[in-house]
Amino acid sequence: MPTAISVVTLLTDFGTRDYFVASMKGVILNINPQVRIVDLSHEIAPQQIGEAAYLLKSCYRYFPDGTVHVAVVDPGVGSARRPLLVTTSRYFFIAPDNGLLSYVLDEERQVDVRVIENKQYRLDAEGTTFDGRDLFAPAAAWLTRGQAPGSYGRLIPNPVKLPITEPAVRDKTLRGEIVYVDRYGNLISNITPLHLKELQGVARKSGDEFTIKLGGYVIEGLVGCYADGEKLAPHALINSNGQVEVFVKEGSAADLLKCGRGETLEIF
Amino acid sequence: MPTAISVVTLLTDFGTRDYFVASMKGVILNINPQVRIVDLSHEIAPQQIGEAAYLLKSCYRYFPDGTVHVAVVDPGVGSARRPLLVTTSRYFFIAPDNGLLSYVLDEERQVDVRVIENKQYRLDAEGTTFDGRDLFAPAAAWLTRGQAPGSYGRLIPNPVKLPITEPAVRDKTLRGEIVYVDRYGNLISNITPLHLKELQGVARKSGDEFTIKLGGYVIEGLVGCYADGEKLAPHALINSNGQVEVFVKEGSAADLLKCGRGETLEIF
Amino acid sequence: MPTAISVVTLLTDFGTRDYFVASMKGVILNINPQVRIVDLSHEIAPQQIGEAAYLLKSCYRYFPDGTVHVAVVDPGVGSARRPLLVTTSRYFFIAPDNGLLSYVLDEERQVDVRVIENKQYRLDAEGTTFDGRDLFAPAAAWLTRGQAPGSYGRLIPNPVKLPITEPAVRDKTLRGEIVYVDRYGNLISNITPLHLKELQGVARKSGDEFTIKLGGYVIEGLVGCYADGEKLAPHALINSNGQVEVFVKEGSAADLLKCGRGETLEIF
Repeated sequence: MPTAISVVTLLTDFGTRDYFVASMKGVILNINPQVRIVDLSHEIAPQQIGEAAYLLKSCYRYFPDGTVHVAVVDPGVGSARRPLLVTTSRYFFIAPDNGLLSYVLDEERQVDVRVIENKQYRLDAEGTTFDGRDLFAPAAAWLTRGQAPGSYGRLIPNPVKLPITEPAVRDKTLRGEIVYVDRYGNLISNITPLHLKELQGVARKSGDEFTIKLGGYVIEGLVGCYADGEKLAPHALINSNGQVEVFVKEGSAADLLKCGRGETLEIF
Repeated sequence: MPTAISVVTLLTDFGTRDYFVASMKGVILNINPQVRIVDLSHEIAPQQIGEAAYLLKSCYRYFPDGTVHVAVVDPGVGSARRPLLVTTSRYFFIAPDNGLLSYVLDEERQVDVRVIENKQYRLDAEGTTFDGRDLFAPAAAWLTRGQAPGSYGRLIPNPVKLPITEPAVRDKTLRGEIVYVDRYGNLISNITPLHLKELQGVARKSGDEFTIKLGGYVIEGLVGCYADGEKLAPHALINSNGQVEVFVKEGSAADLLKCGRGETLEIF
Repeated sequence: MPTAISVVTLLTDFGTRDYFVASMKGVILNINPQVRIVDLSHEIAPQQIGEAAYLLKSCYRYFPDGTVHVAVVDPGVGSARRPLLVTTSRYFFIAPDNGLLSYVLDEERQVDVRVIENKQYRLDAEGTTFDGRDLFAPAAAWLTRGQAPGSYGRLIPNPVKLPITEPAVRDKTLRGEIVYVDRYGNLISNITPLHLKELQGVARKSGDEFTIKLGGYVIEGLVGCYADGEKLAPHALINSNGQVEVFVKEGSAADLLKCGRGETLEIF
């Protein structure tokens, strides 16, 4: 059942300088002028599927039930990679089958994964370079018009997933990695309070007594908020997405520690 | 007749850092809070009218009938240059008379060009530096409220047009030029499949046998999609706007070929 | 009384690359899917409260009555700084109590300043680093649902204000300062036509006879619009926000004069 007002979010590596994102919005509004379109981000580094997957994970669940999340980071556009429609208990996701939805597939319940095969939901356009406009945008818009997911194509059992390594405790040391670097240069890891609790059980330490090692730096203990840090030195806290984050007050931890996505972080 | 929901698009060189675009949106919503506002782009290089004209051409036709397209790249703001309202069979266009609408005027049918003279559609503001906010935004918003185009001002016969050079075949060689460089560094030319067909008739070659010369590089044949290219070498395809485009797989053709807007491309 | 369509504006230093702004929009639409969300800017230099305060001042009054303006530049997030709800005769403002609303508090009438204390308007989230999503966004959305300002918290008499220095005439010289530098490199001062009138009364000069000194350069007289300037030399005009602005035609005054925010400007 279509609601009176539907939300479609867009996540791409298209940037906002060119006509790519605007074309997608035009196509969507042409099919359903009632849609609310929200930009998640268009500044994913070109073709960085892992970065986009993580960004989507970090914000999709704040949107209203029924939201259609469209993610297009698609180096394989025009090749044989499959376009997907994923339905969960709360949302729709539309994306190429290249790992973009890895976290969603892990975390959501009642997940159906379909290939978008129905040509009716495709724009009749020449060329093969712009499925964002010609396939993903109209597929999303038709969902908001109430088209049934079942009409898009057959269910498939094996969508592509990125290798996601979970933090683990060994020899009284918890090892995780940096999964995202934000515009402030904050280094966000995949370590959550649950992992810390596991370490506490093994190492018999309280949160204040943890030592964190990252990029050759040693950080003692966690602080409560950014304002609690001292300038020019790295500190760590649990951020509002529930992840251990290393920051430099009024500065960039990425610059100071010369660290990026994929770097190993140790806590003991 | 105003529709329940109207779309207004904005295309400027204002950037999104300052208060310029936000002011335009405030003015529009103050006149008609029902309007859907869509950003085409605000990252046109300052005062690059040709770049903006091409971007507008590339996406305006994907929007719903009745959309008001507002384009403000306006180095002559405050001088005697005329503000225009152009109506076509499907759309409204509002822009300064400096060539921004060149492609629209070429490609659309039933085109009426008016000067916006009616002071009622102007914001009562001091200063002459911000017609985006004081003239173009309110003129667009009043259209969505159902004001008749005829009430804006008199028809004029001679809007400013940029010199647009069409690709041409001579001595069995098709010559066109690069008209747009996107954020990936893809080099987009003004050569379409129609021009290639003309060349085929003269040169008696199939598409795979074409040789493309650009920036000192020689490219043999067209490929089907980005994924078909090899890394570190330039390739060419027909993109989804129906234009020959030179790209480097997972790289920037603009960087590799050291080419930009205006560069000549030869196919034979 | 909530209107059928409410506008919420967002002003932050979050950038548009990460999931921060999108999370705020998700939260707002989850509470009220009818809201129109408009970005004022997300490109405030990190933690530059003064720049954000000035940008807000420059555009908030163009929005419809009832608009909720949310401003989050918040280096003190998670510390004891207070979150504010300010109501004026026309608007709502939601921001941390750090000076962001200094100009609003100076210029608006019927101003009530409240601390947001009611936990019902807070998202139930872990962590302390993202009040934009967990506190400011839901507080705004609930306003658009008709919640009474009085239900948010107690009135306070003493919100934080930035020291705002007013231009002044002394010894027949008017001194002001650069308060904003836009993307074109235009240098915008806090000097208005009223200040010039005061100088005229003292110095017995007409507008054309003023001399302007800034960054070692001397500019003679004011011009009417950007097109009246000559290239490569600085000129001055009164811009559409009613402020003396120094510009370089088709260039950047900030680059040529090597000036920025805070620089003193003299007129005599």
